Amino acid sequence: MYLYVFSGKASMLCTTLITDLDLMQLSHLLTPQAQQMESSLVRELLQYSQQPDILSLAGGLPDETLMPPLPDLAPVTSFAQYGPSEGEPALRQQISHIISERGLSVESSQVLVTNGSQQGLDLISRLVLNPGDVVLTEQPTYLAALQVFQLQGAVVKTVESDETGMNPEALKAAIEQYNPKAVYLIPNFQNPAGHCYSVARREAIAEIIDAHNILLVEDDPYRDLYYDDVVITPIASLLNAAPWVYMGSFSKVLWPGLRVGYVSASPSVMPFLVKIKQASDLHTNRLGQSLVSTFIAEGKLPAHLEVIRSSYKGKRDVMAAALERELGDCMTIHAPKGGMFFWLALPEDVSSKQILHDALEQKVLVLPGTPFFPTREAYTDGFLRLSFARLSHADIEKSITVLASVIRSHIG
Amino acid sequence: MYLYVFSGKASMLCTTLITDLDLMQLSHLLTPQAQQMESSLVRELLQYSQQPDILSLAGGLPDETLMPPLPDLAPVTSFAQYGPSEGEPALRQQISHIISERGLSVESSQVLVTNGSQQGLDLISRLVLNPGDVVLTEQPTYLAALQVFQLQGAVVKTVESDETGMNPEALKAAIEQYNPKAVYLIPNFQNPAGHCYSVARREAIAEIIDAHNILLVEDDPYRDLYYDDVVITPIASLLNAAPWVYMGSFSKVLWPGLRVGYVSASPSVMPFLVKIKQASDLHTNRLGQSLVSTFIAEGKLPAHLEVIRSSYKGKRDVMAAALERELGDCMTIHAPKGGMFFWLALPEDVSSKQILHDALEQKVLVLPGTPFFPTREAYTDGFLRLSFARLSHADIEKSITVLASVIRSHIG
Repeated sequence: MYLYVFSGKASMLCTTLITDLDLMQLSHLLTPQAQQMESSLVRELLQYSQQPDILSLAGGLPDETLMPPLPDLAPVTSFAQYGPSEGEPALRQQISHIISERGLSVESSQVLVTNGSQQGLDLISRLVLNPGDVVLTEQPTYLAALQVFQLQGAVVKTVESDETGMNPEALKAAIEQYNPKAVYLIPNFQNPAGHCYSVARREAIAEIIDAHNILLVEDDPYRDLYYDDVVITPIASLLNAAPWVYMGSFSKVLWPGLRVGYVSASPSVMPFLVKIKQASDLHTNRLGQSLVSTFIAEGKLPAHLEVIRSSYKGKRDVMAAALERELGDCMTIHAPKGGMFFWLALPEDVSSKQILHDALEQKVLVLPGTPFFPTREAYTDGFLRLSFARLSHADIEKSITVLASVIRSHIG
Repeated sequence: MYLYVFSGKASMLCTTLITDLDLMQLSHLLTPQAQQMESSLVRELLQYSQQPDILSLAGGLPDETLMPPLPDLAPVTSFAQYGPSEGEPALRQQISHIISERGLSVESSQVLVTNGSQQGLDLISRLVLNPGDVVLTEQPTYLAALQVFQLQGAVVKTVESDETGMNPEALKAAIEQYNPKAVYLIPNFQNPAGHCYSVARREAIAEIIDAHNILLVEDDPYRDLYYDDVVITPIASLLNAAPWVYMGSFSKVLWPGLRVGYVSASPSVMPFLVKIKQASDLHTNRLGQSLVSTFIAEGKLPAHLEVIRSSYKGKRDVMAAALERELGDCMTIHAPKGGMFFWLALPEDVSSKQILHDALEQKVLVLPGTPFFPTREAYTDGFLRLSFARLSHADIEKSITVLASVIRSHIG
């Protein structure tokens, strides 16, 4: 048995494997959670994804050709010494402006800079989740969030969701049934399903969370990548009573390799988060923070976001048209209003693993939807996640043509 | 009540406070560990440490005037995209050479790059410690390690230690009594006590750990800062059977603000550590890794280490002479053979908190030893930790003269 060491975007990049022997030698020492972190079929994909002749729809990486050059380092001087755990004051101020412009009014004292929003998720999990505690999520949801929750030994319970978000009635019932600590939501252009919550859903969900006084964990890394008219008011801004955390990232729009993201939170939550951040790694690297801060201070972010949106919108449209043309007669294609992914529900009785296998023989790599399902229900083998961010228009066309022929060959 | 949010070196830099109200509003959601993370009298020190007229012996920061300029960024190109969770291949190779030269032979596959060695400590804690699990430490020990262990809900048990290290007989007895998961050691120039393990102690401790097959956690951030002849073979290199992790850092010798440290581990441990790193924050920032790697590749590290050692050795000698001259008749002064700290055992019945208070009135800031003691025994109020790293020779003289007069005024 090999358990593949695997986490979302990093899935293409990690080659360290766990063997039975490793586990046997250490089982008396490791925590049960560390021993049981999820395996994944994505291990099989790794060896293919790096080959130059493979067209990959599987990854979650942004298009590096759109990443801007680094600002001049000359004005950046204060990177060398240890820094504040909360983050660089100038960047915290800028982030508080950005979040406030989204409709969630926060002070810079409510901003904690993290090593990407993945760390924000981890800090929050450590704040509220001990072994056996329950967290509610959408179904499907971001797989690296599941890893974090599992590392804490938490129990993940899912709530029925569709393209306008989590079902409020189902949420209410789940809260009453499971007494959860937190609800984890990705309201905008979710990874993997691409959904975007309606305004009515946002309001209904905020009301339920307020009434039950549990923690809202709102993850919003894709919000700058919108391609259509949408209202994407943060759900946290609609709360009146319940505590909340709101996570964002520069990784989808600037330089993910610098690891600069952020958490904002209701004032009572902040000091606890900062304390856990300090214990985790003292503070986020100051050079990355200064470079992001300088880019923002130079006023370059808005125009840069336009460039990215324009490029990704074009790719989304090409993929949507190709899918519709090739598969529209036998499948319903939902084009996402933002983000980086199509979420494809396969025709009945078609298995995503079979598609993966057969498409790979024709040099096209796709990602089965299974690892995004916290609970292993029967229908989870019927989805694919397709990323359009890194391929050219021509390669999108080519890969969808191949994929469609493979899917058709499996329709009974 | 205010609990000061506090962690070691960051203690001077963090201003986020927790109030009773925060705790009340959230107590139904937070884990017990998050609620109970240690408070500290160091809160009182914060407001003083940043004042320009204060001479501070209290901090744990290295001397920023010794930090080299950044290498030219031009050859560094691959920072922008997401990177491997294990770290940059070139840096992992360099670190494996560095560790192997110390006597602990490792492959680059046994190196995980972390956000400073603080994160290494955190990852390891999450690997083995669940609430109630026992970890053994020196007494006193690094206070931010205590925070990490407490965040995991672990029980810290201490083992009698002196200037040549942890007592092997006491270690054996503690293992048999407490059935710990791990033993945490800082063998070289420990923070705070400055001890350096003898070769005999290293061998005896390795033998005991081997016999009981528990995890050795060896933390070695100060080893490049040696000022006398010492044999500092890693204890991990003396093990034959037990699993081990070995942590190091570039923060004491290059740019702590970039947050680049590392963990090496026995092969069976590595894949689990990598998995936890992925879940925590995907990977360490690539720009910091590339800058450290470039500095090493340019061959500049050995000469730079000589510069730092020479500067710190001079400061240590000045502080040792001043302490001996001013206090040698009433106290035993142990000059550390490396590192950044003197650990001062005060005369009987003199309280470190009283000294803190009175010295501050004369504009000298010292750090009481109390937060470094995992268990609150009566004698823990009788120590001070004094850092010599950031003060000039003249200011060391001046501050020790003040401190000595304060201590003398308290001797019955």
